[in-house]
Amino acid sequence: MKRKLFLTLLLVTTFFAAFSQDKPAAEKGLIKISVMYPFSEGKTFNMEYYEAKHMPMVAKFLGTNLVKYTIEKGLSSGMPNQPLPYMAIGTFYVKSLSEYQAAISPNRDAIRADFANYTNVAPVILVSEVVK
Amino acid sequence: MKRKLFLTLLLVTTFFAAFSQDKPAAEKGLIKISVMYPFSEGKTFNMEYYEAKHMPMVAKFLGTNLVKYTIEKGLSSGMPNQPLPYMAIGTFYVKSLSEYQAAISPNRDAIRADFANYTNVAPVILVSEVVK
Repeated sequence: MKRKLFLTLLLVTTFFAAFSQDKPAAEKGLIKISVMYPFSEGKTFNMEYYEAKHMPMVAKFLGTNLVKYTIEKGLSSGMPNQPLPYMAIGTFYVKSLSEYQAAISPNRDAIRADFANYTNVAPVILVSEVVK
Repeated sequence: MKRKLFLTLLLVTTFFAAFSQDKPAAEKGLIKISVMYPFSEGKTFNMEYYEAKHMPMVAKFLGTNLVKYTIEKGLSSGMPNQPLPYMAIGTFYVKSLSEYQAAISPNRDAIRADFANYTNVAPVILVSEVVK
């Protein structure tokens, strides 16, 4: 009888853990740093290098302040007859902007020096807050 | 003995479900439609209306093709002495771009008519694919 109660409790806890992970509000309040690479004639972007080398390098600098990072590849403009706005966007989701800045600051030269290995365009950077 | 086996299997399945939800690759391959509202002098954006009315309206048009949507509020440029690139970004994560377009097309006028209720700037739209 005791074992059955234990197993039931364990099941309930596990189900609860499963569902709470699925909550869409998990990212609310986090700071996003979006590094956006504008598209224009003659501009290039090497996604393989970016994914395999550049982003993991920056992620390592950020340590436990980094909740996750994402990479997206620009496909098209959502408006007819408009050019593709960005070739790629890399986004860091962090808990603290000041910790992010403190971690990036001493490594800025290394990060910038790596740009030439995958792109010939200067990125636009947006700092934003996850509202939903 | 049979019940114990059943409970064990159920536990294993539930744990597996819990961990698979936590995988960062869950969004890989999805299509993102990012609606980005550029900042410039005199431009306004009503985040409360956008979150409470506009985004839920569009989300409803998208049905089960919509995996999730997010809203972020622009805080600053990540570069010193650069203006804020975007005041806000709303993003739809969908399974199919063609289904998205088919769902939006008959509702485009309603969506555009609602713009005036929260902003005086025309958005830039990026269609991208989640790489990581």
